[in-house]
Amino acid sequence: MNNLFSDKLKKLTPYTPGEQLNDKRYIKLNTNENPYPPSDKVLEAIKDKADETLRLYPDPESKELLSVIAKKYSIDNDMAFVSNGSDETLAFAFNAFFSGKKVAFPKITYSFYPVYCKLYDAKEETPEMNYDYTIDKEAVSKCKYPLIIANPNAPTGELLSNEYICSLLEKDKERLILVDEAYIDFANQPSMAEYVKKYKNLLVVRTFSKSYSLAGMRIGYAIGDKALITALNTVKNCFNSYPLDRLAQISAVTALNNQEYYNMINNKVKATRDRVAKQLDKLGCTVLPSQSNFLFVKFGGYDSRTIYTKFKDEGILIRQWNYIPDYVRISIGTDSDMDSLINTAKEIMK
Amino acid sequence: MNNLFSDKLKKLTPYTPGEQLNDKRYIKLNTNENPYPPSDKVLEAIKDKADETLRLYPDPESKELLSVIAKKYSIDNDMAFVSNGSDETLAFAFNAFFSGKKVAFPKITYSFYPVYCKLYDAKEETPEMNYDYTIDKEAVSKCKYPLIIANPNAPTGELLSNEYICSLLEKDKERLILVDEAYIDFANQPSMAEYVKKYKNLLVVRTFSKSYSLAGMRIGYAIGDKALITALNTVKNCFNSYPLDRLAQISAVTALNNQEYYNMINNKVKATRDRVAKQLDKLGCTVLPSQSNFLFVKFGGYDSRTIYTKFKDEGILIRQWNYIPDYVRISIGTDSDMDSLINTAKEIMK
Repeated sequence: MNNLFSDKLKKLTPYTPGEQLNDKRYIKLNTNENPYPPSDKVLEAIKDKADETLRLYPDPESKELLSVIAKKYSIDNDMAFVSNGSDETLAFAFNAFFSGKKVAFPKITYSFYPVYCKLYDAKEETPEMNYDYTIDKEAVSKCKYPLIIANPNAPTGELLSNEYICSLLEKDKERLILVDEAYIDFANQPSMAEYVKKYKNLLVVRTFSKSYSLAGMRIGYAIGDKALITALNTVKNCFNSYPLDRLAQISAVTALNNQEYYNMINNKVKATRDRVAKQLDKLGCTVLPSQSNFLFVKFGGYDSRTIYTKFKDEGILIRQWNYIPDYVRISIGTDSDMDSLINTAKEIMK
Repeated sequence: MNNLFSDKLKKLTPYTPGEQLNDKRYIKLNTNENPYPPSDKVLEAIKDKADETLRLYPDPESKELLSVIAKKYSIDNDMAFVSNGSDETLAFAFNAFFSGKKVAFPKITYSFYPVYCKLYDAKEETPEMNYDYTIDKEAVSKCKYPLIIANPNAPTGELLSNEYICSLLEKDKERLILVDEAYIDFANQPSMAEYVKKYKNLLVVRTFSKSYSLAGMRIGYAIGDKALITALNTVKNCFNSYPLDRLAQISAVTALNNQEYYNMINNKVKATRDRVAKQLDKLGCTVLPSQSNFLFVKFGGYDSRTIYTKFKDEGILIRQWNYIPDYVRISIGTDSDMDSLINTAKEIMK
């Protein structure tokens, strides 16, 4: 039955997301979800809109949401783009900007990028990391290809300064730099969004999944020069006219209009992160400085698979990759979740 | 700034969906939405699940929804696939099955198919229609390429018999036939889904947008042999791990579990359709026999753009395409909506 399939299909290697076990026993520290719920106003807005209008298509352009995003960043509506999760924006960006070209990103970063390279016939250039999993800025600076920077980086949590990224943008204004800011709200640095008016070669990609506690609703967005946004819309309108359902749109609008609540919960996450990082360090773990809602941790003397299994046996799910033999990634949960984690870590490191 | 974009981008021509005007003045008969609301149980289920779990990613595999679909058609879960609207399934199918190949569909059909051809480098083969916009079955039967059949066809409403489609499936079992059944619940014929166990070269694509009154929630699905579904999953998992949000998943599950309500409203739509078709015929319009929730209508003496404008001036939105000079498409609304339509039609045809 091989004739049924395209040659394209045979070249693809899917991305594997973190486990989503329905089993309630687990403390879930494996997919970087926010431990705190969405704002009550978001839940109320969804309930309010769960009415007979669901029979109607949503606004294909998500105009209300674009307006709220545009207002947040003091830009025009046509400099913003929304999608079904930020992964969809990334996919469209690969198609619009990197298809058939070389594109660079650090060797250890969000592992969906190499998957998109295959899907969109882009050739990956991956500067090596430093021995300690930090980004080799010299290697990145030398790179002349379109560039993707997850900032803070995943799964390491490292933050590059906006000044450094601006220096890369300055170097060659015909070279696109995509800054994937899935975790920026957990960093002590503002978004690069403030530079999109200055740099027409900058695309900033963001998500409601982490800092807005809406992973379950699938909303991502991008900010950039009008020409970049037009390109994303061209690809989107060749793929799916209505990527965001009515309830996703209203949940994102309401979340942005309740920024104070999210600042409060994200500050809690950051405080917990810094506390846990210190505790793990005291136990003898190696913890990379993190500006994100997760920690990248080495439990000396154990490989990453063993550590993953030890935590799972104790009812705690963390993230592990076979291509990273020594470090695991631990999402920041509630203080109580993290106390359980520390207890297990103590047992392991004693 | 041309260096910023891919060559691929330059080849794309986006699809244009029907207008989604927020202006409440219009009677909206232009995008084939169901005029009746979703079941109360669906709205209750959504409200019930609009809780703190929205902070968590949805099940990436939509297992509960797959189970309910599988039960409906007495198939295994691995013979079903769900997506963010059926357009997303169609896009993935183009990538998995038609990319780099020829693919055939009737000349006048769902106008997203040629858009996907460009997006996925497929070459379209479009057998001409008969003079009256019916499908030239002889031309289709001669065609040896992978085939897409919208059944009932859009925007014409014509239904091909399942026996005829089976005869095409029999001819060459190494040739995929995708049957797009967006409107099948308005036809006097069951879905082709019952043949997916017999024909490993049959993929049936369906949607919750029309007959389940959930256009606002974006849920589509496909039924087919396990190998076809595996291929769709490969593409999906290279694109977006979590295409269906938590509330979309529960709304679809609940809708399928309340089939009686949907049978009732869809029977109402069919009765209204048949009544309106007769009335338009009496007024001197040419109305194609429709097995869908819309009518394909010629108002003799007027071109389609003029007719579209005349209805819009009276506050009624219908669908018009410049490449169809004589016919317009009118979605079936409530009886009251259609009485307004008939009144305007009387004015036009008097």
